[in-house]
Amino acid sequence: MTDNPTDHHPQKLWGGRFSETTAASVEEFTESISYDWRLYHHDIMGSRAHARMLARQGLITGAERDAILQGLDAIEEDIRAGRFTFRPELEDVHMNIEKALTDRIGEAGARLHTARSRNDQISLDLRLYLRDEAETIDGLLAGLQKQFVLLARKYLGAVMPGYTHMQRAQPVLLSHHLLAYFEMFGRDRTRMKDCVRRMNLSPLGAAAMAGTGLPIDRESVAEELGFAGVTANSMDTTADRDFALEFLFVLNLIQLHLSRLAEELVLWSSKEFSFVEIGDRYCTGSSIMPQKKNPDIPELIRGKTGRVTGALVSLLVTMKGLPLTYNRDMQEDKEPIFDALDTVKAGLSITAELLANTSFKTGRLREATHGGFMTATDLADYLVRKNIPFRKAHAIVGKVVALCQKRDIELVDLTLDELKEFTPAIEEDVFGVLGVDGSVDSRTSTGGTAKSQVEKALASAEQQLGIQP
Amino acid sequence: MTDNPTDHHPQKLWGGRFSETTAASVEEFTESISYDWRLYHHDIMGSRAHARMLARQGLITGAERDAILQGLDAIEEDIRAGRFTFRPELEDVHMNIEKALTDRIGEAGARLHTARSRNDQISLDLRLYLRDEAETIDGLLAGLQKQFVLLARKYLGAVMPGYTHMQRAQPVLLSHHLLAYFEMFGRDRTRMKDCVRRMNLSPLGAAAMAGTGLPIDRESVAEELGFAGVTANSMDTTADRDFALEFLFVLNLIQLHLSRLAEELVLWSSKEFSFVEIGDRYCTGSSIMPQKKNPDIPELIRGKTGRVTGALVSLLVTMKGLPLTYNRDMQEDKEPIFDALDTVKAGLSITAELLANTSFKTGRLREATHGGFMTATDLADYLVRKNIPFRKAHAIVGKVVALCQKRDIELVDLTLDELKEFTPAIEEDVFGVLGVDGSVDSRTSTGGTAKSQVEKALASAEQQLGIQP
Amino acid sequence: MTDNPTDHHPQKLWGGRFSETTAASVEEFTESISYDWRLYHHDIMGSRAHARMLARQGLITGAERDAILQGLDAIEEDIRAGRFTFRPELEDVHMNIEKALTDRIGEAGARLHTARSRNDQISLDLRLYLRDEAETIDGLLAGLQKQFVLLARKYLGAVMPGYTHMQRAQPVLLSHHLLAYFEMFGRDRTRMKDCVRRMNLSPLGAAAMAGTGLPIDRESVAEELGFAGVTANSMDTTADRDFALEFLFVLNLIQLHLSRLAEELVLWSSKEFSFVEIGDRYCTGSSIMPQKKNPDIPELIRGKTGRVTGALVSLLVTMKGLPLTYNRDMQEDKEPIFDALDTVKAGLSITAELLANTSFKTGRLREATHGGFMTATDLADYLVRKNIPFRKAHAIVGKVVALCQKRDIELVDLTLDELKEFTPAIEEDVFGVLGVDGSVDSRTSTGGTAKSQVEKALASAEQQLGIQP
Amino acid sequence: MTDNPTDHHPQKLWGGRFSETTAASVEEFTESISYDWRLYHHDIMGSRAHARMLARQGLITGAERDAILQGLDAIEEDIRAGRFTFRPELEDVHMNIEKALTDRIGEAGARLHTARSRNDQISLDLRLYLRDEAETIDGLLAGLQKQFVLLARKYLGAVMPGYTHMQRAQPVLLSHHLLAYFEMFGRDRTRMKDCVRRMNLSPLGAAAMAGTGLPIDRESVAEELGFAGVTANSMDTTADRDFALEFLFVLNLIQLHLSRLAEELVLWSSKEFSFVEIGDRYCTGSSIMPQKKNPDIPELIRGKTGRVTGALVSLLVTMKGLPLTYNRDMQEDKEPIFDALDTVKAGLSITAELLANTSFKTGRLREATHGGFMTATDLADYLVRKNIPFRKAHAIVGKVVALCQKRDIELVDLTLDELKEFTPAIEEDVFGVLGVDGSVDSRTSTGGTAKSQVEKALASAEQQLGIQP
Repeated sequence: MTDNPTDHHPQKLWGGRFSETTAASVEEFTESISYDWRLYHHDIMGSRAHARMLARQGLITGAERDAILQGLDAIEEDIRAGRFTFRPELEDVHMNIEKALTDRIGEAGARLHTARSRNDQISLDLRLYLRDEAETIDGLLAGLQKQFVLLARKYLGAVMPGYTHMQRAQPVLLSHHLLAYFEMFGRDRTRMKDCVRRMNLSPLGAAAMAGTGLPIDRESVAEELGFAGVTANSMDTTADRDFALEFLFVLNLIQLHLSRLAEELVLWSSKEFSFVEIGDRYCTGSSIMPQKKNPDIPELIRGKTGRVTGALVSLLVTMKGLPLTYNRDMQEDKEPIFDALDTVKAGLSITAELLANTSFKTGRLREATHGGFMTATDLADYLVRKNIPFRKAHAIVGKVVALCQKRDIELVDLTLDELKEFTPAIEEDVFGVLGVDGSVDSRTSTGGTAKSQVEKALASAEQQLGIQP
Repeated sequence: MTDNPTDHHPQKLWGGRFSETTAASVEEFTESISYDWRLYHHDIMGSRAHARMLARQGLITGAERDAILQGLDAIEEDIRAGRFTFRPELEDVHMNIEKALTDRIGEAGARLHTARSRNDQISLDLRLYLRDEAETIDGLLAGLQKQFVLLARKYLGAVMPGYTHMQRAQPVLLSHHLLAYFEMFGRDRTRMKDCVRRMNLSPLGAAAMAGTGLPIDRESVAEELGFAGVTANSMDTTADRDFALEFLFVLNLIQLHLSRLAEELVLWSSKEFSFVEIGDRYCTGSSIMPQKKNPDIPELIRGKTGRVTGALVSLLVTMKGLPLTYNRDMQEDKEPIFDALDTVKAGLSITAELLANTSFKTGRLREATHGGFMTATDLADYLVRKNIPFRKAHAIVGKVVALCQKRDIELVDLTLDELKEFTPAIEEDVFGVLGVDGSVDSRTSTGGTAKSQVEKALASAEQQLGIQP
Repeated sequence: MTDNPTDHHPQKLWGGRFSETTAASVEEFTESISYDWRLYHHDIMGSRAHARMLARQGLITGAERDAILQGLDAIEEDIRAGRFTFRPELEDVHMNIEKALTDRIGEAGARLHTARSRNDQISLDLRLYLRDEAETIDGLLAGLQKQFVLLARKYLGAVMPGYTHMQRAQPVLLSHHLLAYFEMFGRDRTRMKDCVRRMNLSPLGAAAMAGTGLPIDRESVAEELGFAGVTANSMDTTADRDFALEFLFVLNLIQLHLSRLAEELVLWSSKEFSFVEIGDRYCTGSSIMPQKKNPDIPELIRGKTGRVTGALVSLLVTMKGLPLTYNRDMQEDKEPIFDALDTVKAGLSITAELLANTSFKTGRLREATHGGFMTATDLADYLVRKNIPFRKAHAIVGKVVALCQKRDIELVDLTLDELKEFTPAIEEDVFGVLGVDGSVDSRTSTGGTAKSQVEKALASAEQQLGIQP
Repeated sequence: MTDNPTDHHPQKLWGGRFSETTAASVEEFTESISYDWRLYHHDIMGSRAHARMLARQGLITGAERDAILQGLDAIEEDIRAGRFTFRPELEDVHMNIEKALTDRIGEAGARLHTARSRNDQISLDLRLYLRDEAETIDGLLAGLQKQFVLLARKYLGAVMPGYTHMQRAQPVLLSHHLLAYFEMFGRDRTRMKDCVRRMNLSPLGAAAMAGTGLPIDRESVAEELGFAGVTANSMDTTADRDFALEFLFVLNLIQLHLSRLAEELVLWSSKEFSFVEIGDRYCTGSSIMPQKKNPDIPELIRGKTGRVTGALVSLLVTMKGLPLTYNRDMQEDKEPIFDALDTVKAGLSITAELLANTSFKTGRLREATHGGFMTATDLADYLVRKNIPFRKAHAIVGKVVALCQKRDIELVDLTLDELKEFTPAIEEDVFGVLGVDGSVDSRTSTGGTAKSQVEKALASAEQQLGIQP
């Protein structure tokens, strides 16, 4: 028996059983501290709660608890201040902090790992971390929603073409189009909330995976850390990364919505559309073509959809077919999460900023509603009101459109007599439905583009976000 | 003006504007009826509610409504009976049914499409369909959970090795291991419920994408179809496939859980593990090796994880960067959903059956808990109770294990004197913690593997599923 | 000993060892005949070669060989004529055919599986099948390339804007743009050839995975089947699906290229671009909006990119982490391959047809080269020729553009005096470089857009495809 | 006209046209220097060749060329020595180096960007970089192959069970199993070579995307940089990332092969298999369980398969549906490539090291070939030689196995009389085929597991790698 139980592995806290030191290449290959240091705050938060519980349960003394808490405070302060050196040979954030604690406060530090394992500790850290990040993202989503609402209010009344198949379909209010994104990002917020609700259970106490024989109190730790309860099965707890995958999926839908907006902004910035003008400060130029002003931000956001999807695929592949309980493969959960998180947060933030620096060319938008026979559906609906079956009305209007195309004119350019040739049901009042504004304002079905409906939606959105219109 | 408004496109209901018929190759390339016929029941369900509303709003007469309803009944009956011929040149399930209706009941049928578009119709059909499928899956998940509960009850008391890193780690109850899966599939059920809650809004009335000017009543249709409300923005409604993506993600986690069980069953069926015996009826043989009995079902389930992940990726890729609102790309949503649904449902069903036909070799499981020093953590915890700091205790036990390895004996094979050489803190009572059963029963932390905890978990699971123990 | 060695499993050819029949649900879950019947031709081709070799090696008699060959001919004829019933309880294409053979010709049929296993048989079938499909795809790629060449010839001289960042960048020849796709699909052809070269080795004779002790002759079978040789290691042979993955990847790049063209066609069909007119026969209409003419084909192709990527992901996930050698998971290789193959073949074919039915609006294209200061780079290059460093020239032209923007004029609208204010280096000859045609024709670097270069590229492409210009 | 053409954007080399400076958030969001600095060596290599060509063509003077070359040397030296500060506001590696050059050598530096764009420059840098990395990977693959060959030589003669479906199937030589991996990684090498061959064309001179009007000489630059030629179409060149995708795919197959080996090493390290002993220096321990020795390296490699697949998906998603030519989305190509490269290189390297530190337990391997009726196929083949049709022989052996199972004995434990009850064809010589060594040695088909075949394969592998046996 030796006084120094870790002589063979001076750095490793698990080295007792090993007769040789770890190869340097192995330390380098297996370390995670280069990225999991990000979890230090939540790791320490968890250790504090754990230490307090150990003392309450008599597993450590009050003095030991105090020493631990003070030691952790000092370490956190050092990390925050950039004074702490993370060491790869100590593998991960847990071991780096525990070793530093023991170096500072001695034996009490060596008692902190009582009744816990890195297996439940990393699950705890990740849950705490993602719970906080979820809140950050909720704030960013709300901030982005706000930009849509502000723009919708600002441009209320402006008309533009609504598209299906990238073809002009029916005139809509620009505000209506903008509020479609308010809805998407609103759904994202509810999805994130569901995800957090499901993950908000404390894993601590699952220990290595079988639970522990020491008299711990999982519930009080959970309560102190703001969890809604504790996980139910220690083996499942250790093996589970559902919450990480669900988080990644929620991020994917956010990024998907950003990508759709990005595509629209790229299109709208093109010479051909010319619907928007993005401020100079939010575009960049070309190294060779002096005249270029490029919508780099939406392009990059659209492009970054790849990495967010890649991150989800990455973790799905990693977790596929893993037997219970913990496998080292699961260390690979963190980098895709961090990368997707950074990407989505940056995307949400810069998009909000970009929108605030983008102006819509309302004249050009209105102009674009002319041409393209965009009120053809209105004419069909007009005929329906004259008691012509819709399918027949649709066919009649198709003929009208074909004629206009041949003569290169618009629907409004036809005379009543010409229109009557298609069906006698058409009367003088038809011209009321062939105009863009009348068309828009007529669509008063719930959620439709009529100004009355959009105003209602806008008011509701403003109230939801606490905006004074 | 012609009597037959669709003369150019005798089959197409949208052909009025076109001067040439669609190329046959185009019809073949663009048709969806070969797979979206699956939605016929929900398409008709939606049309019934739509027709009733049209009548209530005076957009069609009561007689027309009745003709439509009877026509739809007859069509549904014909489809169910296999008497209905779906025609590719009619593109999709909506047009096939509408055309058949008009063929049967004449003009009234031509009024059914009033104030709706295929854009909101397909969203409706999919939501109704997935809502039903979600219920089916919930039932299958419950059925699978039940098998775990039955097995956990049957084998209560049997011990086995618990693993981390595929290395024997600590002894656990087989029932505890089985109930870990109860938890996983339980989480899947809550995830599906959240998904359904979010999708359970009626899209009908978004029409092409701008809403409609006809005086419809979206809310009453929603109510009749069991929706919690209507969608809020017509453009978002038409552009949205979030619900399909979320559904696919929920399926992915189910399949992931199945894949982990499958991996374990494959391992456990190997000669090396020999933990289970799968009934002959649930295995197959080899075309060349007469002695083979292969665990094909879990292998296939594990393998099918690929296609379920592929389905999710497929739709994420399809939706990436689509501008608003509807784009034909979105037609590609259905096949991945159908394939993933079929795969997951079959996997859930056959797995439940397989478990019911699998027996665990409890003798072999117990035998496997010997060897591997699986109670080393218990010894460390024992030292903690003797007031040795955990990290020091861990190191001491590491040394003990190293000695045993060298002498090729187990922990229990050491004498008290030998143990005392490592630390005088070890006393006679140490042998109580070195045995497998004592180890298991000591882990009484909430969610731990002690029989008392597992019994509690089992009782709760039985109650949840309504099983009489 | 019984006369009927398969009495327990009347259908199964491997049932000797089993005491119970396979459950119906298992048969349904594990069968592959519903999709692998596609391989029947190549399965029979392989069996023919195998039978001939067995006879050459004295493992069967000449009479047995002849009976087998005749039996196989009859079976293939029946399958081709739709007279053959594939039975799910016989699992796969191999067993269905072998059983039918034995039913028809008796004992000789039971000798066919000598020295082979389904493990090497499926590898053989897939390789033969994919080799043929690769040829089909090469033909389709060549056919598509031809369309680009025909269009490039037809429109030679037409100018259009070249884009970066979806912003008009520099004027180019339409033919140059079209020939960019000629290059992409040309690379795809070389990639497919490499893939086939690597897969073109005969796996037959690997048997179950260890090779066989019977005196077979792998090399002669390989030669008969047109392989370049035999695989080198029987275990690798059985475990390997590299060739399937590589094939799927090659399909992905083809589809990626199709998706980029599709995106351009969708954009160009929009009212805003109006660069092309797709023939009516290659578009479809709207169920609600009578005026709509939608570019459904390119939209669908763009959307189908998802499923082709999904197919690759599917098989990558399936193969991940499989231990040697064959695992049943690998049965999941076929459906993604078939689906991706069908998708890509249909996409290639319909795209070629679509291009043949699309006309470019050359007037509009030229018009679009005006505005956007697209010859700004030419002005900078002009200054370089006047010995101004490029970076400085770039900055000067940036200023010129800014002025034009402010005054809402184009570069050519400035007077010489105004231009000279930016730098005295500008002289009368500047106006030669500010025009679109001069700009295009000046870019004579290899592969540039000057007509001289494009003509060279076009001639080379025509020669490569054997087209008479 | 101002003396300082970039006054508004003091840092930006493209700022002439812009009236406002770029927002700091935009600089941060769009910069790529934080990762593309990795390309500095190849960027400078390309600039050197470009400068020499510019001088040859008279576009710069010899003195300017020399100044540029010296400037670039100094910059490269500074970067290598860690003395160079990359600045995010200069966006990327190209602009950072060009700006530094101009700062150091003045006007000559401002001439370097003549007739090139970042669009062709990044394509050049990536191709040069990947070409070098491909060579590194080829070396690592060869190094890994060597370990398999050394082990195969070392253990030549050792037998072990061969598996299908994770069930013991037929006895094989350990060396045969090891050489299966030699084949896999050998295929990877050919795949990488094909990829490099296809990418080894110089893009420089495509300029922004239309080529250039300045009298450059693309071919001589290509030759100087070791390219096989120049790309054919400037627009394709700028838009193309095929080579990056193909590179990522090749990495995926390498990682897939690593994952399969990793799975086997994890299994073989388990107590249940106990086939290998990994050296202590290549395993790590547990923070809670003192007895644990975990195969972390293969676990991590298996887990990292996720990120390599994720990287491929990432870029496929990014490139999907991009219109020609360059879009900023394409900036997202680099990080997935770098990450996948780092992962695969580290995996190849550590796996080779791990294998060199792993010993196979040949006694245990032989022991594992007993039990499991692994010579059943040999018995069937024996009957075939006695002229019993294979399918019948298969069924007979199935019966024999069933009897043995019932009596819990092995095939060799049956008496001749007992065997003869199944078929009189069995004679005394049967016992020669029921033994493990006889079975292995009988499989002399090309690529089979017989020692004679394996020796041949081994000799060929050694020769290929230049190893003296």
